Amino acid sequence: MKCNVDYSLYLVTDRELMNALSLKEAVESAIQGGCTLIQLREKTASSLEFLNIAQSVKRVTDRYNIPLIINDRVDIALAVNAAGVHVGQRDLPAATVRRILGPDKILGVSASTLKEAKKAQADGADYLGVGAMFPTGTKTDAHLVSMDELRHIRKDVSIPIVVIGGINKTTVPQFIGTGINGLAVVSAILSARDIKAAAGELKNLFLQGGKE
Amino acid sequence: MKCNVDYSLYLVTDRELMNALSLKEAVESAIQGGCTLIQLREKTASSLEFLNIAQSVKRVTDRYNIPLIINDRVDIALAVNAAGVHVGQRDLPAATVRRILGPDKILGVSASTLKEAKKAQADGADYLGVGAMFPTGTKTDAHLVSMDELRHIRKDVSIPIVVIGGINKTTVPQFIGTGINGLAVVSAILSARDIKAAAGELKNLFLQGGKE
Repeated sequence: MKCNVDYSLYLVTDRELMNALSLKEAVESAIQGGCTLIQLREKTASSLEFLNIAQSVKRVTDRYNIPLIINDRVDIALAVNAAGVHVGQRDLPAATVRRILGPDKILGVSASTLKEAKKAQADGADYLGVGAMFPTGTKTDAHLVSMDELRHIRKDVSIPIVVIGGINKTTVPQFIGTGINGLAVVSAILSARDIKAAAGELKNLFLQGGKE
Repeated sequence: MKCNVDYSLYLVTDRELMNALSLKEAVESAIQGGCTLIQLREKTASSLEFLNIAQSVKRVTDRYNIPLIINDRVDIALAVNAAGVHVGQRDLPAATVRRILGPDKILGVSASTLKEAKKAQADGADYLGVGAMFPTGTKTDAHLVSMDELRHIRKDVSIPIVVIGGINKTTVPQFIGTGINGLAVVSAILSARDIKAAAGELKNLFLQGGKE
């Protein structure tokens, strides 16, 4: 059974953006600051390196009872018994992932159009990562999603939505009232000098916005 | 149930080595020339590209009833219901792969030392790829295995062994009498102007040797 996941602050990792901390230290600080979900993203690691990193990070997320989602690699998710997998449009199709992952794991799908969003939901996604909302250094080729497109997606799909791409304390207020379920953040947390404080600030901004 | 696999001529793909043919055309010619097993190896493709290539190649291997083995990516193997997975020493550990792949799929492991070979067998490998036997352009960082080491491995492990790395018509005769089960070949087949003829020649050389 999947638990009722709190998507409010979703850290997506990128080791290239990090300062002196190890990834597991960064993840621990982010969780202490209020991150509710961690996505481990590794684009250049060998399978063995990815596995070792996933095991190391999972020891942290398990200690805090935070779900660990693996980017792209269903085999790594199965190998470490992660909470789920997140796939983009160039990864395995959602329906394929659902089939090999089973019904009890969390499946997230990146969507930048209403069509992709509806297809992901139909194919068994548990949540959507919608973006890129703003230009960002971490994904330079991403299609930009307008606030209007986001509202259309929110209106037409029922599964939780997190926004991604250029999410930081300046941009978060724009999402107040859009009905999204959370913020997916990379550099605004990982590149911060104080990761815990940066996560805490974003979490507060989002939760305060939600209550207005 | 795993069938009694014929390892005698094992094609390992490398799209960079290919001439004008598409991969599925090359694989079909190799099978017509006598290849008994195909390993699909993709080191730079996205997951979706890898999946699409695997599905395309599997339509060919299925037609000839030839097992398709996926290099490294257990999730791709599960997604296309391939016959098995081959892992190197930088991929997921054999025991992990066996656990997530189940008992009925073929698991191959690369080994370049007796220690790796024995561990792979203990961890559930169905066969070993032993090499690199000779210097080769496709894997320049590979540890070279001497004929003595190969004999030690053959003596101490019972699962089938294929040799890899610089296997071509000049080097094949050296393996006569070593008790190996097959040849794993990349460029000597894929770079040949006539793939079918190149495969046929290697197959004959190996089978004639085995009968001497």
